[in-house]
Amino acid sequence: MENKIVEEIGKLLEEVKNKKPLVHNITNYVTVNDCANILLALGASPIMADDIREAADITSISSALVINIGTLNERTIEAMIASGKKANELNIPVVFDPVGAGASEFRNATTKRILEEVKVSVLRGNMSEVKFIAGLQATTKGVDASEADINAANEEGVIIAKKLALMLNCTVAITGVTDIIADGKRGVILENGHKMLANVTGTGCMTTALVGAYCGAGTDCFLAAVSGIISMGIAGEIAFEKAGQVGTGSFHIAIIDAISNLNSEIIGKMAKAKEL
Amino acid sequence: MENKIVEEIGKLLEEVKNKKPLVHNITNYVTVNDCANILLALGASPIMADDIREAADITSISSALVINIGTLNERTIEAMIASGKKANELNIPVVFDPVGAGASEFRNATTKRILEEVKVSVLRGNMSEVKFIAGLQATTKGVDASEADINAANEEGVIIAKKLALMLNCTVAITGVTDIIADGKRGVILENGHKMLANVTGTGCMTTALVGAYCGAGTDCFLAAVSGIISMGIAGEIAFEKAGQVGTGSFHIAIIDAISNLNSEIIGKMAKAKEL
Amino acid sequence: MENKIVEEIGKLLEEVKNKKPLVHNITNYVTVNDCANILLALGASPIMADDIREAADITSISSALVINIGTLNERTIEAMIASGKKANELNIPVVFDPVGAGASEFRNATTKRILEEVKVSVLRGNMSEVKFIAGLQATTKGVDASEADINAANEEGVIIAKKLALMLNCTVAITGVTDIIADGKRGVILENGHKMLANVTGTGCMTTALVGAYCGAGTDCFLAAVSGIISMGIAGEIAFEKAGQVGTGSFHIAIIDAISNLNSEIIGKMAKAKEL
Repeated sequence: MENKIVEEIGKLLEEVKNKKPLVHNITNYVTVNDCANILLALGASPIMADDIREAADITSISSALVINIGTLNERTIEAMIASGKKANELNIPVVFDPVGAGASEFRNATTKRILEEVKVSVLRGNMSEVKFIAGLQATTKGVDASEADINAANEEGVIIAKKLALMLNCTVAITGVTDIIADGKRGVILENGHKMLANVTGTGCMTTALVGAYCGAGTDCFLAAVSGIISMGIAGEIAFEKAGQVGTGSFHIAIIDAISNLNSEIIGKMAKAKEL
Repeated sequence: MENKIVEEIGKLLEEVKNKKPLVHNITNYVTVNDCANILLALGASPIMADDIREAADITSISSALVINIGTLNERTIEAMIASGKKANELNIPVVFDPVGAGASEFRNATTKRILEEVKVSVLRGNMSEVKFIAGLQATTKGVDASEADINAANEEGVIIAKKLALMLNCTVAITGVTDIIADGKRGVILENGHKMLANVTGTGCMTTALVGAYCGAGTDCFLAAVSGIISMGIAGEIAFEKAGQVGTGSFHIAIIDAISNLNSEIIGKMAKAKEL
Repeated sequence: MENKIVEEIGKLLEEVKNKKPLVHNITNYVTVNDCANILLALGASPIMADDIREAADITSISSALVINIGTLNERTIEAMIASGKKANELNIPVVFDPVGAGASEFRNATTKRILEEVKVSVLRGNMSEVKFIAGLQATTKGVDASEADINAANEEGVIIAKKLALMLNCTVAITGVTDIIADGKRGVILENGHKMLANVTGTGCMTTALVGAYCGAGTDCFLAAVSGIISMGIAGEIAFEKAGQVGTGSFHIAIIDAISNLNSEIIGKMAKAKEL
């Protein structure tokens, strides 16, 4: 455990609770309720708006924008672009979750377009998605990372994350059994989490939303990415302890409970963060 | 506690359970699942349909229509208007939740259009939304009421609710720490509820849905508004007792549990209603 | 209890857990989160995609396609047709849930169009929906079966299911207090389940999703339909045992818990299946 960054995470969490940043989410309809509830549980304030006629207006009153292409469509893509450009104009951080990149030409083209037209602060995906974006051979299976990609994560991941962070000039986060977060200069590996998180839909989307909340409360998006991802990892461990034996429905609820009880003390005690 | 109105609420709840009114919801995709489940928990029957080619048909077989603009878009607005007009034609009550009114020009224009083209039976919003509609200076922050507006609620709220009720010729309900419900003649203040309700998304939307169920089971929309709002307030208190210490995920589930167990006896014991 | 089919169900469940079939769902936004979570709980992998520009691509990498018209609209109908045709082309099983057929002209026309343009492997609906499709007089009330139709289920249902199965050359499943599953040759009646399942939204949609998972893991869609429906029935009984007295919110979560703990032993012990 690295004390310095863990302390900083704890402080940033307190900032979220104090500032209650408004986080604008243009996201998918599968996990949108969980994203709103996890933001409230952390202490942030969610708003969802995806019509082109208001998206940029809503972004402009928000502290962060989260773009998630889980169930993208023609209508919402334009809202994502308009909101992303407005966020860039106003220096509002943009967090991008390229759900299922690699799984269809449409997702690939949309991912490409968003990365070309919007300056992203944090890109968070699984190994398959990030490999695809980095222009590498990935073996995407739907919206989950393939097993081949998961196994390769540890060694390969650090290299890919660092390379892509430089390419896109942003923070890149690859989540999986081990989470890797890198920007052009810094890198962190996180060993928190529980494999049961893969048995509940939306744990990735919720993680991205949490990164948005931390981005909205501070000024360092690398730290925000580490904070969001470690929050979900720790919540997964606590939830498994409480409800892992009961079933995935109860585990799902326990994740939100754990985020709503999270504080700097718990983070200090449980964090498994290693700076690279 | 005023015994008469509390007794009437209890009777109307029994009517919901007997009649199982079909409630047509054109609502947002963030909290739509909770709205359906809370309606079933109360004893009503939910239906969601937002395509212009069926919206009015579905309204015409329903006992109440609930319009919620939480994630409005071009397509669904037309369905809201068509369904609203059909409801008016057939004397089916319309409950309107102007989520986020004041937060974007698009929401403002849509709110205005709905109120111009559809005769609403109950308008339910938070203090910021209702102030905005009343043409007053509100300090909206996204979809939640601002703290300034919450603090002003008690004194100012009664005046605003009564004034707007006369203007729109409907029941106006302002929910918050104290809930204010008024129509042209009557007024009630409710002191039930728990502040943790603000930490779960959709408690406002669910309240509006419950108002729709009560409207669909009776003939007095003022009483229905009081009934829906007090049901959620009491459920919030019971849920906090059961799960408040566990976390916001469990509290969320406990709200639905509490509504499914609600009866006239519990309402009689817990109601904090004051007629104005 | 018929040992042979119950054993086969248990084996097919193991196949789901081994193969983790990717199930493409074009479904409604009310219950989509539950559908994703129930698929993960069973051991399958969900993907939701409804834009015409990727729907067929996503279908082509999936093991089954589930079409649910709960909140159909102009945009998603075209995706359903395109995906259905692609599935037919690639011999990927299609499971169809005609939610609310009979409730509006739009749903009726869409149901007709899907059945004309797509070869369906399994049709699963409630008594009112299936009667409507069979061209019989049904008394639909929104998205739930009418009481008249529920009471007629047992005797009439077997005849209707067999007739419609021959007409459509597929497996037809009518779910209710008693579940009836038939294809051109075989028939099964299931007596599992609990009436509280009707008090949670999406238990029908989840059942259909489970049928999709079983279809994707095996080769016999009749067996898959029986497996999906009995899984939900058994889960309902277990959930009622655990949480029925607590309320419908907890019961909802307990259903997902039960599916995540389901195995061939539990099925062997609890199944109430009777071959016709």
